[in-house]
Amino acid sequence: VWAAKAWREGDPGGTRAGRRPRAGSVPTGFLDVDVTSAPLALECLYTPWAPGTDSDGAPTPQDCPRVFSAGLDLTEMCGRNPAHYAEYWKAVQELWLRTYLSSLVLVAAINGACPAGGCIIALACDCRVLADNPKYHIGLNETLLGITAPFWFKDAYVNTIGHRASEQALQLGYLFPPSEALQVGLVDQVVPEDQVLSTALSEMARWLAVPDHARQLTKNMMRKATADRLLRQRDADIQNFVSFICRDSIQKSLQVYLEKLRQRKG
Amino acid sequence: VWAAKAWREGDPGGTRAGRRPRAGSVPTGFLDVDVTSAPLALECLYTPWAPGTDSDGAPTPQDCPRVFSAGLDLTEMCGRNPAHYAEYWKAVQELWLRTYLSSLVLVAAINGACPAGGCIIALACDCRVLADNPKYHIGLNETLLGITAPFWFKDAYVNTIGHRASEQALQLGYLFPPSEALQVGLVDQVVPEDQVLSTALSEMARWLAVPDHARQLTKNMMRKATADRLLRQRDADIQNFVSFICRDSIQKSLQVYLEKLRQRKG
Amino acid sequence: VWAAKAWREGDPGGTRAGRRPRAGSVPTGFLDVDVTSAPLALECLYTPWAPGTDSDGAPTPQDCPRVFSAGLDLTEMCGRNPAHYAEYWKAVQELWLRTYLSSLVLVAAINGACPAGGCIIALACDCRVLADNPKYHIGLNETLLGITAPFWFKDAYVNTIGHRASEQALQLGYLFPPSEALQVGLVDQVVPEDQVLSTALSEMARWLAVPDHARQLTKNMMRKATADRLLRQRDADIQNFVSFICRDSIQKSLQVYLEKLRQRKG
Repeated sequence: VWAAKAWREGDPGGTRAGRRPRAGSVPTGFLDVDVTSAPLALECLYTPWAPGTDSDGAPTPQDCPRVFSAGLDLTEMCGRNPAHYAEYWKAVQELWLRTYLSSLVLVAAINGACPAGGCIIALACDCRVLADNPKYHIGLNETLLGITAPFWFKDAYVNTIGHRASEQALQLGYLFPPSEALQVGLVDQVVPEDQVLSTALSEMARWLAVPDHARQLTKNMMRKATADRLLRQRDADIQNFVSFICRDSIQKSLQVYLEKLRQRKG
Repeated sequence: VWAAKAWREGDPGGTRAGRRPRAGSVPTGFLDVDVTSAPLALECLYTPWAPGTDSDGAPTPQDCPRVFSAGLDLTEMCGRNPAHYAEYWKAVQELWLRTYLSSLVLVAAINGACPAGGCIIALACDCRVLADNPKYHIGLNETLLGITAPFWFKDAYVNTIGHRASEQALQLGYLFPPSEALQVGLVDQVVPEDQVLSTALSEMARWLAVPDHARQLTKNMMRKATADRLLRQRDADIQNFVSFICRDSIQKSLQVYLEKLRQRKG
Repeated sequence: VWAAKAWREGDPGGTRAGRRPRAGSVPTGFLDVDVTSAPLALECLYTPWAPGTDSDGAPTPQDCPRVFSAGLDLTEMCGRNPAHYAEYWKAVQELWLRTYLSSLVLVAAINGACPAGGCIIALACDCRVLADNPKYHIGLNETLLGITAPFWFKDAYVNTIGHRASEQALQLGYLFPPSEALQVGLVDQVVPEDQVLSTALSEMARWLAVPDHARQLTKNMMRKATADRLLRQRDADIQNFVSFICRDSIQKSLQVYLEKLRQRKG
C-alpha cells in the first residue's frame, strides 16, 4: 500500500490542480497510483484526490485510501501475446519516467509491503516514509521470481543505496524489513503506522519551503542522466522485456508463482 | 572561517615554497584562502603564510588567522555587468580546479560556518576537520538563495557523500550541523574547537607519511574524471552562470538575501 | 589466507564440476587460489578441491587448507625482464576477470591478512566473511610500497566502499582492521576465527537458494561495465604496469620492502 503526495502548484500538466495550501498549512493535493491496474492508468498520475480535511484544511490519516500494491501486475506478464507485453512495459516505463522526472515534490507514504514495482515507484519519489511494521518489506525481489530487474530499476537502486548494497540485494532478491531499509538508505524515515501520513506531510512541507524553481532545476540535474539512459534505450528495453517474458521457462516460473499466491489467498 | 594547510615540498608552482619540515616534525607551509575576496585572489593559493612556530618548528594554534568565509561573495554576483560575472566565475572555477587537483596534501581545518563556496573549497581538500560548534554548519545551500549549484559542485558532493544524500541535501539546500556532517561523511573528524588545528596537523602528518609520488598519482586517478568534466564544459558553465545570474528574478532574490544579511548585522 | 567457495553446478567450464549439493545441505565444491604462485596458476581457478566432509556431507573447518596470501607475489615484480612483467600482469588481469565475472557464487572466507592482491580477489567475490582477529587487516596498500593501484583495483574499491572512502584509503594505503572493514562495507561479516568457514557456507547457501539464471544475469548486469572498462584498456594497462615497474626508483622501493620482509621473517 502506498500513496505519493504532491503539491499541485506548479504542476506542468496542472489543469486539474488541487487547492494551493494556505500559508503555514500542509499541501492537500494527493496522488494515488495503483500500479496493479493494467494497462497502467497513467492518467491517475495527474488526478488529484480530494481527501477529507481537518479544521486546518489538512488531510487526515483515516481518509487515506489503502491502495494495495504488490508491485507490477504479474497477470499482465503471463499468458498474453507479445504486443500486449510491449504495450504493458511501455506504460510501466512511462509511469516511472513521469514520476522520476516530475517537477512536483513527491513523498511516498508506504503503509504496506513494497516489493518490485511498488519499490521502483517509491524510488522515483523525492522521499520515502515507511510504516514500522515488520511485515512491510521493501526491495527489488525479481530474482526470486526467476526474472531480472531491468537496468533502470538497477540504476535507481544504485542511486539510492549505492553499488555494493544493490549488487547484493538485487542478486538475492532481498526484501528489507523497515529497520534495515532505514539503515541502508532505502527509506528516509520509519515511523509508527498511524504516523506515516502526518510524517509524510511534514516532510512535504520541508521540501515545499524551498524556492520552487531552484529545487526543480536541482532535481533535474540530479536525475537527468539516469532518465536519459532509459530514454536512449527505451525500445531495446521493451524488446528485451518481451523476448524474456515470452520464454517458456519464464512463463512457467510466473505461473508457479501466481498459483502459490492464489493458494495462499484461498 | 577556514584554513587549508599544505606541505610546500613538491609544489609544482613552488617558487615560493616554504620550508621543508624536518623529519618527525609537522609541515609549516600554510595556505590561507579568503574566498570572499573578489575577483578571487588566486595568487594567495600559492602564498605560504609564515606562522609562529613552537620549539619544534610547528605552527601554533594561536597563530592561525581566522579568515571568515560565508562562501562566495554574493556582492560579486549582484548589480554588475555580464563581463564581470564571467570573469568572476572563471576565477571560481580556477580556484577550485587548482585546489582539487593540487599535488599537495590539503587539509581543511574548518573553524566556522562553511556554506556554499566555503564548502566547495573544503570538498576540494583531501581531508576535513570541523570544530564541534553547533553554529558551524556545512553544505551547499544554493537553492535557499533561489539559485542552483553548478554541476561540478554537485559532482564533488556526490563523490563525497554519495548520490542519494546529495540529491536530498542539494534540493533542500541543507546545511549539516557537525554531528550530521560527520555521519554523512561530509567531514572526516569533528573535534573541540581548540583542537581543530592540532588535529588537522596530525592528519596532515598521516598523509605526508605516504610516499609522495605514489600518493599524487593515486589522487589524480581518483579526481581526474571529475575535473575533466568541468574542463570540457568550462565555457558553457560560465555562460550558464552569467545568463542565470543576469535574470531579473535571480538578481531580486540575491538583493533580498543581501538586504537580510545587512539587517542581521546592523 | 583465503579460500573462495563455489557451487560447481552451472559452471560454464565445468568439466570438472564437483558434486551437486543435496537439498538442504551446503555446497562442497571448493575453489582455492594461491595468488602467490607465479605465473598465476589460473587452472586452479577451476580445480575443485575435495574436502573432508562430516556426516551431512558438508566440508569441515579443519579440512580447509590454509593458503597464505600476502597479495601478489612481489618477487615476480622485482629483478625480472619486461616480457616477464607483461606476462605476469596479464595473468593477474585474467585471474581477476574470471573471478569477477564468474557465473558461480563465490564467497571469500578470509582467515588471514588480506592486503593488495589478496584484497582485489576478495573484492571479486560475491561476499566476504572475515575472521575477527586484529591482525587480519584488509585493503589496498599499494602507495605504502611506493607503487599505485591500477585503475581497475580502484574501480572495484569504489564499487564496494564508495568514492570518498576509496579516495582516502587508496591514497593512505590504509589497511582496515576487521571492525572498520565491516563498518565501511569492505567485508560483509566479521565472525570468530573458528566460525569463518561455517559462516561462509551459510552465506553460500543463501545465494544458492536464488534461481540460478536470474542471479547470473543480475550479477552480470552489475559487473559488466566495470569489467568492460578493463577489457577495453587491457594492453594499455599492461604497458603501464611494465613501464612503471621497470623504473629504477620503483625497483629500489620494492627491493627495500622485500629486504624488510626477509629481515622480519629471519
